[in-house]
Amino acid sequence: MDWRDEAWREGLKITLDYNSVTSRFIGENGISKKEIDALLPRAREAREALSKGRSEGIYPFFDLPYQDTSLIKLLADDIAKWAENFVLLGIGGSALGPIALHTSLRHPYHNLLSRRGRGKRPRMFFMDNVDPDAFGSLIEQLNPEKTMSCVVTKSGGTAETMAQFMVVRAIMQKALGKRKLKKHFVCITDPEKGNLRKIVQSERLTSLDVPPGVGGRFSVFTPVGLFPAAVSGIDIDELLAGAADMDRRTKEQNSLENPADMLAMLQYLADRKGRHISVMMPYSSALRDVADWYRQIWAESLGKRLDLKGNIVHTGQTPVKALGTTDQHSQVQLYMEGPNDKIFILLRVESFARELPIPEIYKDIDGMAYLGGHTMAELINAEQAATETALARAGRPSMTIRIPEVRPFTVGQVLYLLEVSTAMAGGLYGINPFDQPGVEEGKILTYAMMGRPGFEEKRAELEKLKKSPEYVI
Amino acid sequence: MDWRDEAWREGLKITLDYNSVTSRFIGENGISKKEIDALLPRAREAREALSKGRSEGIYPFFDLPYQDTSLIKLLADDIAKWAENFVLLGIGGSALGPIALHTSLRHPYHNLLSRRGRGKRPRMFFMDNVDPDAFGSLIEQLNPEKTMSCVVTKSGGTAETMAQFMVVRAIMQKALGKRKLKKHFVCITDPEKGNLRKIVQSERLTSLDVPPGVGGRFSVFTPVGLFPAAVSGIDIDELLAGAADMDRRTKEQNSLENPADMLAMLQYLADRKGRHISVMMPYSSALRDVADWYRQIWAESLGKRLDLKGNIVHTGQTPVKALGTTDQHSQVQLYMEGPNDKIFILLRVESFARELPIPEIYKDIDGMAYLGGHTMAELINAEQAATETALARAGRPSMTIRIPEVRPFTVGQVLYLLEVSTAMAGGLYGINPFDQPGVEEGKILTYAMMGRPGFEEKRAELEKLKKSPEYVI
Repeated sequence: MDWRDEAWREGLKITLDYNSVTSRFIGENGISKKEIDALLPRAREAREALSKGRSEGIYPFFDLPYQDTSLIKLLADDIAKWAENFVLLGIGGSALGPIALHTSLRHPYHNLLSRRGRGKRPRMFFMDNVDPDAFGSLIEQLNPEKTMSCVVTKSGGTAETMAQFMVVRAIMQKALGKRKLKKHFVCITDPEKGNLRKIVQSERLTSLDVPPGVGGRFSVFTPVGLFPAAVSGIDIDELLAGAADMDRRTKEQNSLENPADMLAMLQYLADRKGRHISVMMPYSSALRDVADWYRQIWAESLGKRLDLKGNIVHTGQTPVKALGTTDQHSQVQLYMEGPNDKIFILLRVESFARELPIPEIYKDIDGMAYLGGHTMAELINAEQAATETALARAGRPSMTIRIPEVRPFTVGQVLYLLEVSTAMAGGLYGINPFDQPGVEEGKILTYAMMGRPGFEEKRAELEKLKKSPEYVI
Repeated sequence: MDWRDEAWREGLKITLDYNSVTSRFIGENGISKKEIDALLPRAREAREALSKGRSEGIYPFFDLPYQDTSLIKLLADDIAKWAENFVLLGIGGSALGPIALHTSLRHPYHNLLSRRGRGKRPRMFFMDNVDPDAFGSLIEQLNPEKTMSCVVTKSGGTAETMAQFMVVRAIMQKALGKRKLKKHFVCITDPEKGNLRKIVQSERLTSLDVPPGVGGRFSVFTPVGLFPAAVSGIDIDELLAGAADMDRRTKEQNSLENPADMLAMLQYLADRKGRHISVMMPYSSALRDVADWYRQIWAESLGKRLDLKGNIVHTGQTPVKALGTTDQHSQVQLYMEGPNDKIFILLRVESFARELPIPEIYKDIDGMAYLGGHTMAELINAEQAATETALARAGRPSMTIRIPEVRPFTVGQVLYLLEVSTAMAGGLYGINPFDQPGVEEGKILTYAMMGRPGFEEKRAELEKLKKSPEYVI
């Protein structure tokens, strides 16, 4: 049985449990039925706008679950045959999706396994920074003959990624010669626009397309996420089947029955009631980078100065990633006793691949004896339930996404759910969740400092800024 | 020259630049000289209370830079001779310090290097969770003969750590026999109290002490942090010299000249003016887990329901870790345009071990040509300055800790600075920064669910909680 079977799919359905967000469960700090009902007309408008936009082709991310993956798989399998190292050069939306898939769906120590242990797949490196020590120390380690670089930039011009590409290209050319270079690069970028596309065309490099109209943070189900996943041996068809299954559930027009709409509405209402921080806390090490991916899509989509009418609104919850049980020993003191300014999304895995029994030893020591005979799986899930209950008793709202097990079909559901929920929340806030005007100024200032032609005036302006030495100690 | 030389130390002095937090630099959203001056009397009180407490021996963490490290180094070197794998079993304050030291001061791909490449030191694994898949898949990989486990729990009874220990102990005993077991464990715990100490005594295991009175989150300069660091080859004497150097600077009674006091005061004032989130954003991959360590010390110390007089206060900024430049492509949109509810602590490294030149290729492509001839070190630092400036122009306050280079002496300064600053902030808020009463309820609920004797009533109470199925979709 696999994802083509309906009963199989039903058994792997994720659910959103929002009991612990309701006033019925947590008291006056909770969200009441009345508040939810009052938001329904606005939710209906937002839902209709999404459906309309989708049918008009404005939101192509919705339809990604239904693409043909044969070319991606063919290319990935071909590379896996010879490459020992796969290096992704990309940042932000070009890296967070691939990393989330890798962490959740591959062995936790993938790069330490033998080639056979890795299923004859390459070691995977995701280089999402321009730190010279981290980057330099990686490329020193890799044998150019056995290394494949995947250059990912939607726009084709991201400064960090282009700088990485320039460094790696020069090293590879020196080691291998210009003629053998081609085999070692795959570029993923816009089909027509941008500098990377120009280079692909003039140097006849292998490339895959980011579909126009799909922004970086919504690109996990494009080749940006799928190609690295396929290279490392993840079943990308099962992943997309999970996304398609969630598409079916999140098309529901009644928002009360639609998990994406409810997630968006509850977060929106919580924000309006002072819960300005949205903590995602998986009780699963494998899902920790799903929380990091969420951090981008929620922050960059909803953190906006202007609404669609041009009013200054400064919207946006601050997403925070946490990890259970680890952060119970770091953040939960604050979560329980600090300001009541947070809503929690806990991720709970019902069945782990390993149970890991705790042996019945130290039976005579109170404080250890009770652990023996249980499993680590039981312990981590008891702690999830304990945290949910303790937060509820302190009047702090949480939701729990229950995941039957971590595998491509369920991870596909989770990511797609969060994408649709983000788009829906954009509608509730009345902002555009698909742009990011706030990062332009930083880019321009960087160009000015790096001496890019055309930015001389900005540079002169910067040079006039004088810091006061008395404020440096 | 090394840390025994004054000129060397002076050249490696970290500084706190708070220009971009002042109203002079960022306008009305900034903190004015007047506000700082008004806080000085309270700061003086807090400073005096710290000095008094220190001289009375109430705050032993202050004096950790001056300990004798010979036993730690001897034991560490002895283990490094034979162990291929060092596995730390610990969570929260027992793991975050060791991880921060390892990430910042060892090779970024330490575990992928050959034994020679690692300086003949073991591979290092920090197991700070009870996820059965992550934990199980690690222990499957390790050869028991070549593996050393270090069990770290201040109290000697942390459920997660004891469960890990029970699992590992049983596996090791099965593989090696009871007689050979001893060599493979080092325990770090309270010198007298707790279950782990009992076991150390009855089984004659090797142990190191966490000095009484030093809490987990202040334990990085005890054997908790120092021993794993010494095992992996970090110069712990240089680290402590850095801490000692910062001790000298943060003893200063005039808070305006004391970097720990200023950091605490500015964060406190920012919080009072609506900056409830404190983002630490290193522009250095090596320092990313220093931000994670900060996240614990700031959250757990200052997130409190009651002040010292028993008033309900619900204090505590929410610390967030970010990473430059990576999070410019994930969080900076929100930081620039979302609610103005954050203060930023940027960490800037003036000199990296590698410069990593960007080759002068693609000279005819606008948008790439300007990068050639620069280095990646220049690029990451230009982006740090650009982000600081862009935030300032949007009226969002930031401070920058300037770090001449990342090495034990400077990391020691940073961590000690943040410890003292946290203690100082506790004084400003009027709360106890050294306890964590808010995590008890979660522990008790976990005991109840796991069937620990004595918690039957709690369990019955839990079983009465019935969730409503209509709130699950």
